[in-house]
Amino acid sequence: MKIIGIDIGGMSAKAGIVNENGEILYKRTVVTEKETSSGVFISDMAHLTFDLLADAGLTLNDIDGIGLGFPGSINDEKGIVRYCCNLNLRNVEFVKLFKSSLNFKKPVMISNDANCAVLAEAKFGAAKGAKDVVMFTLGTGIGTGIISGGRLITGNASAGSEGGHTTLIMGGKQCGCGRKGCFEAYASATALLNQTKEAVEKNPDSLLAEKVNAEGLSGKVPFDCAMLGDRTALEVVRNYTKYLGEGVVNFCNIFYPEIVLLGGGVSNQGDNIVRPLQRYIDLNVYGREYNPKIKVAVAAMGNDAGIIGAAALCLQ
Amino acid sequence: MKIIGIDIGGMSAKAGIVNENGEILYKRTVVTEKETSSGVFISDMAHLTFDLLADAGLTLNDIDGIGLGFPGSINDEKGIVRYCCNLNLRNVEFVKLFKSSLNFKKPVMISNDANCAVLAEAKFGAAKGAKDVVMFTLGTGIGTGIISGGRLITGNASAGSEGGHTTLIMGGKQCGCGRKGCFEAYASATALLNQTKEAVEKNPDSLLAEKVNAEGLSGKVPFDCAMLGDRTALEVVRNYTKYLGEGVVNFCNIFYPEIVLLGGGVSNQGDNIVRPLQRYIDLNVYGREYNPKIKVAVAAMGNDAGIIGAAALCLQ
Repeated sequence: MKIIGIDIGGMSAKAGIVNENGEILYKRTVVTEKETSSGVFISDMAHLTFDLLADAGLTLNDIDGIGLGFPGSINDEKGIVRYCCNLNLRNVEFVKLFKSSLNFKKPVMISNDANCAVLAEAKFGAAKGAKDVVMFTLGTGIGTGIISGGRLITGNASAGSEGGHTTLIMGGKQCGCGRKGCFEAYASATALLNQTKEAVEKNPDSLLAEKVNAEGLSGKVPFDCAMLGDRTALEVVRNYTKYLGEGVVNFCNIFYPEIVLLGGGVSNQGDNIVRPLQRYIDLNVYGREYNPKIKVAVAAMGNDAGIIGAAALCLQ
Repeated sequence: MKIIGIDIGGMSAKAGIVNENGEILYKRTVVTEKETSSGVFISDMAHLTFDLLADAGLTLNDIDGIGLGFPGSINDEKGIVRYCCNLNLRNVEFVKLFKSSLNFKKPVMISNDANCAVLAEAKFGAAKGAKDVVMFTLGTGIGTGIISGGRLITGNASAGSEGGHTTLIMGGKQCGCGRKGCFEAYASATALLNQTKEAVEKNPDSLLAEKVNAEGLSGKVPFDCAMLGDRTALEVVRNYTKYLGEGVVNFCNIFYPEIVLLGGGVSNQGDNIVRPLQRYIDLNVYGREYNPKIKVAVAAMGNDAGIIGAAALCLQ
């Protein structure tokens, strides 16, 4: 079985031919630009597909399906790209147009990149074999990819799975979405940076302040300084972990996953974030006395997760 | 098609023969008691089944499946009753034992009553035909029944869907589950009673206080007084609706349902609770500009929902 997976970003689109074991056989990248019209964009993706096939010495007849992951809001079922912040795509009937531009009769599936990421992990990565998985991508915001009972949770018109925008503290910190107190406003990488900045301002004599002034602000600095025993950094990490834990437990109480996965910048902290989160879940999830333990792990698929996850849309 | 649905409660078990249209053809009830051992309980359910069949002039051969809804924690997939507060059942291999006590070879399905309720509504009630439904039962606590992509969300070991225990205000009001700030601590019927009581204590001269002193505390009184323009009552209803709205929007952002259903005592307020909740969702759900409107309604199935929903476990 050979599937083409295309991981579309605001800067580039990466395409790969993926087999049923989630291995990438051939790979190719093309630049994407915000200014490109939807018609040109679709033609670019068609060219990318044909160039990739040429690299591999294959034709479309050898391909069983094409999956594409987008950084935006997608109607998976209808094959429509609703909008992508960094691409010039608004309510585009992508699947229909892309299929006809290729003259391809087999399945073309699209979804957003958070869904592709969790699919890749559940099929071939850190959650391999699990039927119930929640993945949190801790970056600029918080993206959630959710698999429940072996299936992606997308909601009506694929408008759901916006887990970063669930309240942690009603009426709390302003979130970019307009609401106040969202999980994302407390536990994204951006929130960690803000919390670090505030702590530095309040504690200018701390090791944390010293390091931030020397190295600049990053999500790594508070973890580094906490390991060196700096009290201000320990406090930042402790509070951040509590916010993250509280939000993750909410999803555990709804989905009771076998495994919780962390992706995005903050997940680079590995055990420094996994262990306290594991403890938080062990102590706080509902029905913990009676039910299986929920494992926490870092996403394992790395850079190719987007390609493999997009291909995995056709393996569901 | 004929399915037996049994709605088990702490006081009684109600059984019905249900057809594929969700109509109850015959019905029978038996008393349940907390003291009854699991062995006797299973035998009671077997007798209930045979008595019901005798009423209908049928035998087990005429029946295509049996579904049972329990007031407690169930492992649907394994057919195990993990625990029920008001029944003497702990880790009972119910499906296996019940099938062998009946010598019944066709499907026997079990689940908890909140799952049965939402199934009944999605198959035959207020959410008929919807593939994405979230139902909130606003009673002593908050029960959630969730259907996403046409399937019940139960989680690993069916330990999920405990939506009442997601935080609304981290570190807030103590919840019965041990955590602080749960949705249930702010938006259950119990929470509404507490909020009413506090308002009465602070405003002893209000109409609300007068009515509570005359009629006693109930979830109905603040709504009644609010309609009469009492400021204290209006404030209680406004705050309660905001808590409820905020929690419901969280689920909308995750599941983006076609329809949100309200059940339990508070839902008896009908339009007085449905309309403000509808407004709150319309104004606050993520991606509302691009996505279909989410409808709010009161559950429609009434007293027989439990029987029909239990039967519907075999119609999934």
